[in-house]
Amino acid sequence: MVEVSEHTASLTTNPPKKRKKDMEAKLILPSSSLFLFFILLLVLFTLSTIPFAPPSNKAELLDCSIYSPWCTSKNRIQSKNHPPTRHHHSSSDVVPHHPLDPLTIQELNRVRDIIKSHALFNNSPYALHSVVVEEPDKPVVLAWTKGDPLPRRKASVVARVNGVSHVLSVDLANGEVTRGQEVDQLSGYPTMTMEDMTSSTWAPLADADFNRTITQRGVDLADLACLPISTGWFGKKEDNRRLIKVQCYSMKDTANFYMRPIEGLTVVLDMDTKEVLEISDRGSNIPIPKAANTDYRYSVQNAHQLKLVNPISIEQPEGASFTIQDEHLVKWANWEFHLKPDPRAGVIISSAKVQDPETGKFRNVMYKGFTSELFVPYMDPTDAWYFKTYMDAGEYGFGLQAMPLDPLNDCPRNAYYMDGVFAAADGTPYVRSNMVCVFESYAGDIGWRHSESPITGMGIREVRPKVTLVVRMAASVANYDYIVDWEFQMDGLIRVKVGLSGILMVKGTSYINMNQVNKQESLYGTLLSENVIGVIHDHYVTFHLDMDVDGIDNSFVKVNLQKEHPSPEESPRRSYLKAVRNVAKTEKDAQVKLKLYDPSEFHVVNPSKLTRVGNPVGYKVVPGGTAASLLDLNDPPQTRGAFTNNQIWVSPYNKSEQWAGGLFTYQSHGEDTLAQWSDRDRPIENKDIVVWYTLGFHHIPCQEDFPIMPTVSSSFDIKPVNFFESNPILRIPPNLEKDLPICKAAASA
Amino acid sequence: MVEVSEHTASLTTNPPKKRKKDMEAKLILPSSSLFLFFILLLVLFTLSTIPFAPPSNKAELLDCSIYSPWCTSKNRIQSKNHPPTRHHHSSSDVVPHHPLDPLTIQELNRVRDIIKSHALFNNSPYALHSVVVEEPDKPVVLAWTKGDPLPRRKASVVARVNGVSHVLSVDLANGEVTRGQEVDQLSGYPTMTMEDMTSSTWAPLADADFNRTITQRGVDLADLACLPISTGWFGKKEDNRRLIKVQCYSMKDTANFYMRPIEGLTVVLDMDTKEVLEISDRGSNIPIPKAANTDYRYSVQNAHQLKLVNPISIEQPEGASFTIQDEHLVKWANWEFHLKPDPRAGVIISSAKVQDPETGKFRNVMYKGFTSELFVPYMDPTDAWYFKTYMDAGEYGFGLQAMPLDPLNDCPRNAYYMDGVFAAADGTPYVRSNMVCVFESYAGDIGWRHSESPITGMGIREVRPKVTLVVRMAASVANYDYIVDWEFQMDGLIRVKVGLSGILMVKGTSYINMNQVNKQESLYGTLLSENVIGVIHDHYVTFHLDMDVDGIDNSFVKVNLQKEHPSPEESPRRSYLKAVRNVAKTEKDAQVKLKLYDPSEFHVVNPSKLTRVGNPVGYKVVPGGTAASLLDLNDPPQTRGAFTNNQIWVSPYNKSEQWAGGLFTYQSHGEDTLAQWSDRDRPIENKDIVVWYTLGFHHIPCQEDFPIMPTVSSSFDIKPVNFFESNPILRIPPNLEKDLPICKAAASA
Repeated sequence: MVEVSEHTASLTTNPPKKRKKDMEAKLILPSSSLFLFFILLLVLFTLSTIPFAPPSNKAELLDCSIYSPWCTSKNRIQSKNHPPTRHHHSSSDVVPHHPLDPLTIQELNRVRDIIKSHALFNNSPYALHSVVVEEPDKPVVLAWTKGDPLPRRKASVVARVNGVSHVLSVDLANGEVTRGQEVDQLSGYPTMTMEDMTSSTWAPLADADFNRTITQRGVDLADLACLPISTGWFGKKEDNRRLIKVQCYSMKDTANFYMRPIEGLTVVLDMDTKEVLEISDRGSNIPIPKAANTDYRYSVQNAHQLKLVNPISIEQPEGASFTIQDEHLVKWANWEFHLKPDPRAGVIISSAKVQDPETGKFRNVMYKGFTSELFVPYMDPTDAWYFKTYMDAGEYGFGLQAMPLDPLNDCPRNAYYMDGVFAAADGTPYVRSNMVCVFESYAGDIGWRHSESPITGMGIREVRPKVTLVVRMAASVANYDYIVDWEFQMDGLIRVKVGLSGILMVKGTSYINMNQVNKQESLYGTLLSENVIGVIHDHYVTFHLDMDVDGIDNSFVKVNLQKEHPSPEESPRRSYLKAVRNVAKTEKDAQVKLKLYDPSEFHVVNPSKLTRVGNPVGYKVVPGGTAASLLDLNDPPQTRGAFTNNQIWVSPYNKSEQWAGGLFTYQSHGEDTLAQWSDRDRPIENKDIVVWYTLGFHHIPCQEDFPIMPTVSSSFDIKPVNFFESNPILRIPPNLEKDLPICKAAASA
Repeated sequence: MVEVSEHTASLTTNPPKKRKKDMEAKLILPSSSLFLFFILLLVLFTLSTIPFAPPSNKAELLDCSIYSPWCTSKNRIQSKNHPPTRHHHSSSDVVPHHPLDPLTIQELNRVRDIIKSHALFNNSPYALHSVVVEEPDKPVVLAWTKGDPLPRRKASVVARVNGVSHVLSVDLANGEVTRGQEVDQLSGYPTMTMEDMTSSTWAPLADADFNRTITQRGVDLADLACLPISTGWFGKKEDNRRLIKVQCYSMKDTANFYMRPIEGLTVVLDMDTKEVLEISDRGSNIPIPKAANTDYRYSVQNAHQLKLVNPISIEQPEGASFTIQDEHLVKWANWEFHLKPDPRAGVIISSAKVQDPETGKFRNVMYKGFTSELFVPYMDPTDAWYFKTYMDAGEYGFGLQAMPLDPLNDCPRNAYYMDGVFAAADGTPYVRSNMVCVFESYAGDIGWRHSESPITGMGIREVRPKVTLVVRMAASVANYDYIVDWEFQMDGLIRVKVGLSGILMVKGTSYINMNQVNKQESLYGTLLSENVIGVIHDHYVTFHLDMDVDGIDNSFVKVNLQKEHPSPEESPRRSYLKAVRNVAKTEKDAQVKLKLYDPSEFHVVNPSKLTRVGNPVGYKVVPGGTAASLLDLNDPPQTRGAFTNNQIWVSPYNKSEQWAGGLFTYQSHGEDTLAQWSDRDRPIENKDIVVWYTLGFHHIPCQEDFPIMPTVSSSFDIKPVNFFESNPILRIPPNLEKDLPICKAAASA
């Protein structure tokens, strides 16, 4: 552990020791209200005795048992509580088969070796913040077909060397390292490494003041659990060095330490040196909430278990209807797409194509779709809370936080699981097992139906069941859990759904009943239990949707419903709605704030492909789960999260514009967001365009969210609109009894 | 058939024969554009040879085989295509067990006999437009418990006698008939009877001009299918008599006659006399669209079947987890509620209670929830379309149009089916079998979850599956199919979902390609196929939610998120959101237009019941599927559909305010809508209150909707908010492999 600590410490070029006292002086302000929220990692003192040595040079894969506790051996996880799933797991040491395939273990090792021996890194301590495949240029990928040799394999590496961030392109064939995207002008830092987060949570313990404060609050150091919380950027204080704030909890008598905040205590660290820059404690008068009734584990519910329903299961005795070719190419019903885990986005869907039922051909729908950024501002302006304005993908790595899924519960029995293979800070690959699942879902819903009234004598009752394919991941960004589903329907629709569960970031308070509170608003939230406040916050999840509807060049069309007033001679009606099509010429035409009383449909059409009767083929983005960020545009969090200023944006394709909050989100000033790109107002008509959609949630917590939240979901759809000549599922069969399985209870087996 | 025709004809008091020519003269206007939409019933000439005699006085139940084609013998339907479902069907001749139970067959027969011998009906022709149980006053129902004698059973009857509408209360015990709700001031007419609709579609055939017109349009009378379309109300023309418009289609070479409109031809009938008042034909130059590719029946797809997935099924080998006590009381997991079919609302959920996991007690949530009205305005101002502004519950009977569900496809294999028992126009009961289904659903979703990062050493991965109970009906209001789901979740949430499927009401056109069209807007819709336009329209579905959160007296609280601006001394933040609670004092305080940029939560709280920490217990209405009606408030359809002027309303409980569009919706002037009631601005604080929520859809058709529409769904939630002390599903167990079934393919059995 000491070695790692030194290792990261040496990244710092300007040890800011002198500043520490200045900052403390400034920050000793009157205090009373205290708060909390978000990220990873808790330190058991016991853990610090585990040897934590960097891997030997010969290691081909992190040894999960001794080195990296966040790396999960799939066998370990699987054998612990569950039998192996029925499906074949992706073997993590395969060769790549597709230009978009993620780096294999061998390739990651090769990158590590190239980097290590490269001049830039020679004799300098460094950390790799991201190592992923560098996707070939779009025309190369589009031109490639199975059987062709793979385009040259390259890795895109984000590294910090001597306090400087680099984006590098590593050629796996010849070992050449070249500069990638220009990053000198970017204010922010790369996504934290897992090592950054882990070591930050331990660092305060080296500080005697900190330890004394904890003890004064009545918490045994052995019960301490701390989280590394991104600082955001609010001005000069956050300039010129990587900072992290650490807040802590008592894990005494509960696994749910999140419910036991040591309120108001914030430690500011230099993330590179791990030096404690400041300790702010405004919560000495706030009791730590009780542990009672906070634990959510099934094993501690004992006699109080609540068995409400008989077993229920989705069954497919003839097997799943999808195949996964070459580890990443998913084929199901009339769909095929490339699927891969990603350390920053979580899951990336690429080259999604749907089969035309008339021609049998697969037609392009979406070149690339993924979670580009999240923005989670808390609504409490006080010392220990104001900075909690998380950007989970760019700051923490949405994929890095995606833990192994729990078979039978995170996904149904008929699921297939896919592993992620990522790189540690020194480049050593590790496996995140069961990170993504794929399954067919049937909820008893109806694909289409029609009954004729019996009076026609037709006796028609035609109904088709609705079966879908779900791709799921669940990221546990410390307390909160985000469930992201990409759901494919046979009618060509893609539903993108985000579920929120997990545990609230709560704030300690001296109140134990609302009758003690004069103004509810001053709580900044809801009293959830004695001494526990759930603080109001928003969630925004912004998706990058590189639509290629039947080809690369598309246009964005707002189909606006406008009221017309016919004259009395024309009609007894005084009003009706017309659909007026407006093609967006430039980016600003496509900055959309949704309006209930000025509604539009949002089509992405291929203007050069018409249906038989002459409509341009298209897909539409169907908004859902809308909540808009109401923060002031010049509030620093909103400047950094400016990609939420509109619900929909459209930009021309630009390989470097992947991350809505900017490539280097951490402590960024907001100069590299989707909003900045879009304000360049580039032409987007009949171009390769990218649509950005933001799902939003306002969350005013309620007692039902304590001590763990029932899932809340929202979704939006990407839906064919004159893409097909007619209903593409007209000819699917109904369910027939003779095809359905014969089941018996397991107990009776 | 002749007898029935005379029977309904004799209801008319003022045969308006003289007016016919006047109206025709006025309506001969220049014509060119033509259109179409909505309701039931098609006439095969062959059908007219079937004897259609009123039932003999001795009939206790309509004989479905000879009398009433809209009545469905459950045995007939079930034996036709499907084996009997596994669940016990409600027997239709039981005695009532609960004060809210619908009238039994015996009770309906008793009502028929009482009515027939009553002075009001003596020697007068009459029609019963509605015969349902008269629910006892709310305090009586609330005071009743199982084992108590039932409150006096009464029927609420809507009848028309000699052209006058009556609401009557029929005491089943003593045969007393008393006046019910005062209706003299109401402008509209009762919901049409099935006989009204059926006979209207045949009536034009008695008119030689009509028959000549059909023949001139090249349609053989034997291929004719006609629909009865409510006229709405636009002024004097629709005053003082019941009118219906009839439009027709060719069913040659397709079961999907809806795709073959005889465009522009509208027949106006006196619904009582069945006299043809007017024939308007503006479509003589419009070809009838081809039959090719319109049929949607599986049997005609032949070699083109598209089998995309293996069989998939929801399985519960230990059986369903719900019981239905005494035919109507559903008990599942932590829920219990009363469920009954209704001819106007479709499905009524009553006395919904959820069990508190801490006390074990069942706590009231909702006294009554149902679809109160639908409003479906089309956006075409021309002669054959402007009046299409359907109110499906009040005009057609949303429950009357709910056809038998198709086992295995409308509902999954594990469903239970419930029959409806309704009365024909003469009072004779009939059975609508399989009208409602109840099933448990599991889509592979997650009830709650949390993973701890492995670094904690805790190895926590706690996930609970989400299983729900769905109550479903599907109304086929002619071409369109509405699927209504009430979905109960164990976490206390009720999701109300409406799915739209079925067949578009389309408009004939001479265009076969968009390159012939100058201005797309002038189509009033989308060219879906050669000569076929899908006309733009809206759907609004308004729900009556009589919330009784933990007791009768509740308040409606808007929890508004308001932006605050802290000073620079207070915080580095420039803005944040506070939740400000506003209790609605009167109805106008609770007229809500949703605003994305001025968001609120909408709580129904019990101000006299507090949680342990002092929050008022509540449920919130969580909007979803929002679309607002944009029509002018003084446009006659919007005046009649004024209940859609807001998305949320709250009214004090009033037994007579059940139907948002008014008790007598048909041809009403809009003087008896929710908007009128609400404008009285009555006090609603700490009262028995009813919340009204409207789901909305704008529908711009697309080619995928041809020839039958994939289901589009929207939903809203009724969700506990500080109702429980904590997460009510904390203690439910995860799925375990040992509990799940063992299944094999049926074919291998």
